[in-house]
Amino acid sequence: MISSLTLVPSPLPLYTQIKDILRERILEGTYKPHHKLPSESEMSTLFDVSRITVRQALSDLQNEGLIFRIPGKGTFVAKPKAFQQLTQLEGFAEAMLRMGYEIYNKVISHKSVPASAIVAKKLKLETGTPVSEIRRVRYLNREPLSMEVTYLMEDIGERLRSFDLPTRDIFLVLENDFGIALGYADLQIDAMLADDDLAHQLKIEEGSAVLRMERLTHTAAGKPLDFEYLYFRGDAFQYRLQIARRAVDATAVPQNQAGDPLP
Amino acid sequence: MISSLTLVPSPLPLYTQIKDILRERILEGTYKPHHKLPSESEMSTLFDVSRITVRQALSDLQNEGLIFRIPGKGTFVAKPKAFQQLTQLEGFAEAMLRMGYEIYNKVISHKSVPASAIVAKKLKLETGTPVSEIRRVRYLNREPLSMEVTYLMEDIGERLRSFDLPTRDIFLVLENDFGIALGYADLQIDAMLADDDLAHQLKIEEGSAVLRMERLTHTAAGKPLDFEYLYFRGDAFQYRLQIARRAVDATAVPQNQAGDPLP
Repeated sequence: MISSLTLVPSPLPLYTQIKDILRERILEGTYKPHHKLPSESEMSTLFDVSRITVRQALSDLQNEGLIFRIPGKGTFVAKPKAFQQLTQLEGFAEAMLRMGYEIYNKVISHKSVPASAIVAKKLKLETGTPVSEIRRVRYLNREPLSMEVTYLMEDIGERLRSFDLPTRDIFLVLENDFGIALGYADLQIDAMLADDDLAHQLKIEEGSAVLRMERLTHTAAGKPLDFEYLYFRGDAFQYRLQIARRAVDATAVPQNQAGDPLP
Repeated sequence: MISSLTLVPSPLPLYTQIKDILRERILEGTYKPHHKLPSESEMSTLFDVSRITVRQALSDLQNEGLIFRIPGKGTFVAKPKAFQQLTQLEGFAEAMLRMGYEIYNKVISHKSVPASAIVAKKLKLETGTPVSEIRRVRYLNREPLSMEVTYLMEDIGERLRSFDLPTRDIFLVLENDFGIALGYADLQIDAMLADDDLAHQLKIEEGSAVLRMERLTHTAAGKPLDFEYLYFRGDAFQYRLQIARRAVDATAVPQNQAGDPLP
């Protein structure tokens, strides 16, 4: 698959040249997503460079998110990542449909459970109060992208049963059908490894990287409404955000709202 | 280590009760960070419940970020995560010192390299233009928390050599010593697995979860200034953020700036 890769005289270090060639072929679509790259030793022969040089190029590409390795299987081209802006609070379907993606939500379970200590604390209830727990896998263009576990007051959760959760965002049902104005959400974002259940739902290997978010959404009146855990495939999704150097306050002209192009 | 764990009569499912007991002991400090939990079968005996029940409790705690598993070694208590607000653009030391952490930056390398295609594109230079590349491991309270790879115009990067990079944020040197006003940054956040080099620098296992950020910081005049890759230990760090339902615009009173408590 890799051919005509003779390096030409260049001021760039060899590993940078190799990296740039591979990156260009990935970004231009010559190497398709999930295409398997030649092994380090094959590339070392093809480019006529040391394995250390190849390894450094691959390490950088991995750290840029363009390729990924599966131990014992090889190195593969990553798919272009879907992304969601964190500029305002939006449901996943809301954000993705605008970009032309097809969205489908597989409802794994929808049940009433007694609130655990943490869910109770977030929703300001007594531990053990019945709450609705909704587990969904969200599909983007027919592939699973995230698993979401949502906790709501039981009365709200039960009313949701008569709505089309496979295609609709819960946020939009709450707003448009229930007339609950959403206010703000507190987000926490980190990274973890997929356990076997999550791996199974997202069709990834156990131990794959997962972008995790905890989101506590409040009504416009400031009451906690919806507590969620969101688990996104690390190989397929990213958040994007633009932030300004100084905190925006009412007396200043905010830098990123005053003409700088928002992405 | 686990004792007096007899479950009392409760409306909560068994796995929720076990989860709540373990969570409480972790959050109250009875189980210290990196404390090894008993095996599934030991806990099954201790609580007198099935292994499936124990496994569900542990899976939920792992998905909450409170415990982590190392294949072949067992299940361990996670440390409380350091976090940084994404409300405004800040250097890491700037944000962490305010919260009382001790910060140290180990400069791994500081050199001039020809800009690769991607660095050149981000900084709006020709490919091959010399740029400064600075690799730092950032320590929080004496433990490595992140690796950062920074690209700057060569003249700026060279001037940085005479400043105290082990203790100072590059952002603050740029502003306070060089007089360059920072404007906004475009961020991309995702998750990946640590390769061997990153694992070595961050003192984690290869294949551990890493929270990755690409950050392109612009001057107040909108010129790209500083392009970085930031790699945070997934087990030790999170980003936090508060976002409002509607995009803030100049004519509206922004919800999360009008009295709602920012965390």
